[in-house]
Amino acid sequence: MGNVQAVAEAIAGEQSSGTFIALPNESVALRERSAARVEEVAEAPDEGNPSLPGSAGEGSPKTYRLTVSWPLANVGASLPNLLATVAGNLFELRQVAGLKLLDFSVPRAFADAYPGPGFGVAGTRRLSGVAEGPLIGTIIKPSVGLSVEETAELVEELCAGGIDFIKDDELQADGPSCPFDERARAVLEVIDRHAQRTGRQVMYAANLTGELDEMRRRHDLVQALGGNCVMLSLNSVGLTGFSAFRKHCSLPIHAHRNGWGYLGRSSDNGFSYLAWQKFWRIAGVDHMHVNGIRNKFWEDDDSVIASARACLTPMYQDRPLTVMPVFSSGQTVHQAHDTWRRLGSADLIHCAGGGIVAHPGGVSAGVEALRFAWDAARSGIPLETAARSSRSLAQALETFQ
Amino acid sequence: MGNVQAVAEAIAGEQSSGTFIALPNESVALRERSAARVEEVAEAPDEGNPSLPGSAGEGSPKTYRLTVSWPLANVGASLPNLLATVAGNLFELRQVAGLKLLDFSVPRAFADAYPGPGFGVAGTRRLSGVAEGPLIGTIIKPSVGLSVEETAELVEELCAGGIDFIKDDELQADGPSCPFDERARAVLEVIDRHAQRTGRQVMYAANLTGELDEMRRRHDLVQALGGNCVMLSLNSVGLTGFSAFRKHCSLPIHAHRNGWGYLGRSSDNGFSYLAWQKFWRIAGVDHMHVNGIRNKFWEDDDSVIASARACLTPMYQDRPLTVMPVFSSGQTVHQAHDTWRRLGSADLIHCAGGGIVAHPGGVSAGVEALRFAWDAARSGIPLETAARSSRSLAQALETFQ
Repeated sequence: MGNVQAVAEAIAGEQSSGTFIALPNESVALRERSAARVEEVAEAPDEGNPSLPGSAGEGSPKTYRLTVSWPLANVGASLPNLLATVAGNLFELRQVAGLKLLDFSVPRAFADAYPGPGFGVAGTRRLSGVAEGPLIGTIIKPSVGLSVEETAELVEELCAGGIDFIKDDELQADGPSCPFDERARAVLEVIDRHAQRTGRQVMYAANLTGELDEMRRRHDLVQALGGNCVMLSLNSVGLTGFSAFRKHCSLPIHAHRNGWGYLGRSSDNGFSYLAWQKFWRIAGVDHMHVNGIRNKFWEDDDSVIASARACLTPMYQDRPLTVMPVFSSGQTVHQAHDTWRRLGSADLIHCAGGGIVAHPGGVSAGVEALRFAWDAARSGIPLETAARSSRSLAQALETFQ
Repeated sequence: MGNVQAVAEAIAGEQSSGTFIALPNESVALRERSAARVEEVAEAPDEGNPSLPGSAGEGSPKTYRLTVSWPLANVGASLPNLLATVAGNLFELRQVAGLKLLDFSVPRAFADAYPGPGFGVAGTRRLSGVAEGPLIGTIIKPSVGLSVEETAELVEELCAGGIDFIKDDELQADGPSCPFDERARAVLEVIDRHAQRTGRQVMYAANLTGELDEMRRRHDLVQALGGNCVMLSLNSVGLTGFSAFRKHCSLPIHAHRNGWGYLGRSSDNGFSYLAWQKFWRIAGVDHMHVNGIRNKFWEDDDSVIASARACLTPMYQDRPLTVMPVFSSGQTVHQAHDTWRRLGSADLIHCAGGGIVAHPGGVSAGVEALRFAWDAARSGIPLETAARSSRSLAQALETFQ
């Protein structure tokens, strides 16, 4: 532990008052008021991965869990500067074979300085008119390539089929082949027509990712058209752009995490989702993507459920900042039961793209089947049993293996 | 190559019109207008690293270099949406054992849509009054912990010592113990006083990283005080926030890359610097950090030099968008010769923090020694030879081993 203590001190030093050499003006008083402090170093299970490039250590690396604290007076209640402090140069230290930010906690000052979610679970339920159970959602598919008219036609089918939530794909923002303004007008006209029929407005997360002035203008357009949600890609926008938009925004923000793979897939580098989602909840997202049970991507179910739980776990007792987890990626009727069983909550959006649109009975049957699967799950009825009394569910079970 | 071709197609599909299942509305015409195209798959040297978690492949992974192209009509000339397209969900595909974005090129439409660097090399030389050779720079050290008055005192010493460039540390933005406004006022007063004496204004990169309104206001303050540079942490601010700030900004932007480790250190995940820096050059930074020769971090010299070359390599013939590379991290007089020899250019900022402030003869001797080392390098005089005619350089050679 001698060596690891020194490494921990190097990390704390690099991210506060230290550098590679002792400085004449680094007084004891200065260190006392500004140095980061190593609170704990504990050995942790090692996965046997090799060192990242440039590591100075020899032999097989070991894994430790470090706890480091910083004076708030260094940073202030600023998320961009918090990020530079807890997730800045430290990843580049040669003293470490790899470094992953597992979690952090920050004083209440951060919750006071930022708006947090404007809608969260309750506001999303209110605006979408879904009082209980998950919001049954879908992604417009194909992700990209549909014209404005084709998009509106698909939305027509989805609304007629009783969907709760529709989102643009993150690849579809304002490309010349399906411009944002025209798409928003066409889609929201369809949604409004169905809302007048049903008394309940489908929630449409319009992907307004872009430059700040565009995002603000698109938000205003969506709002003027009676829309009830906007979507953006967090890693494309970044913290400062997000907060500037958040100030302007009066609709729920559906936060897409595309690019999460480069931040969180490695066991030895980057962020845990637990840590990462906290930045965005403080900043004020309302829905956070968490991948899905038996998804088409790399992530295992334990990790997905841990992420969803994190979204629903209060950050401060009087300021929970909880957000609605969004399950998606290769989702079909097959995942409803396990999602319910493992999460123990239906405060979520369950998005199936192909899992709804590719239903052999059509979009309407696709929506019905997924909703029926959830009803069965929440009533403790096995999927196969439920399928006996639902043709759409039986077809879905057969189609989506 | 059969399997790898299928994986390449899965990547192209995931990032354009495909999903995990064939869709009824994914017509041939739609695919033709919107599908990403696999241009080339070529086997590449493999480093023998294990798969990232969740990879579906068996046995030892192989490495391939893929070239994929997208229709501009999907994305539009939008950097945030370009990022979601070329660096979005694809990192999460279980079909890959790891994925790294090595390079990209985009049509001139991007250079037309974004301002690019407002100053670059020529503008930086003009404003700093350094017509040739590197800007000899330093980081205020200790990084954090100095009061406003102590910071101004150090800047006084640095200006008296003939420094060309001073930057805040990325940990020092607007923390309560050294608030931005007071620091900027105190530092720029010192710099102005010396400018009146010498006729040349030291360039001070004031770290205004924060929320957009804060950044704009701080920019205006710096400008009103006669300052000639601002600094921000790219990964804290993000693309959208950066572009919103860039529109407002009329000073050179010193771009800090802290957090680069989580994006680029892994061989198998994330970004190459070559690809990453292009986003920011199009968006409009002026100085980009590239680490330094024999730095205190993990990166080897080949990688550092490749990064610096990338910054100086034109992106479009008539719109080069070149920026000034910033060498830093554990830099002393020992790195001048190799930096010059390997880069073949002195269009750079060479920042030594401890390597100047910790000089036993004081700050002034520290600046003098580093400048003298560079003069020697550019004149083809070996460091040891040069040290015979410079006490400050001789002392530096001894102090910084």
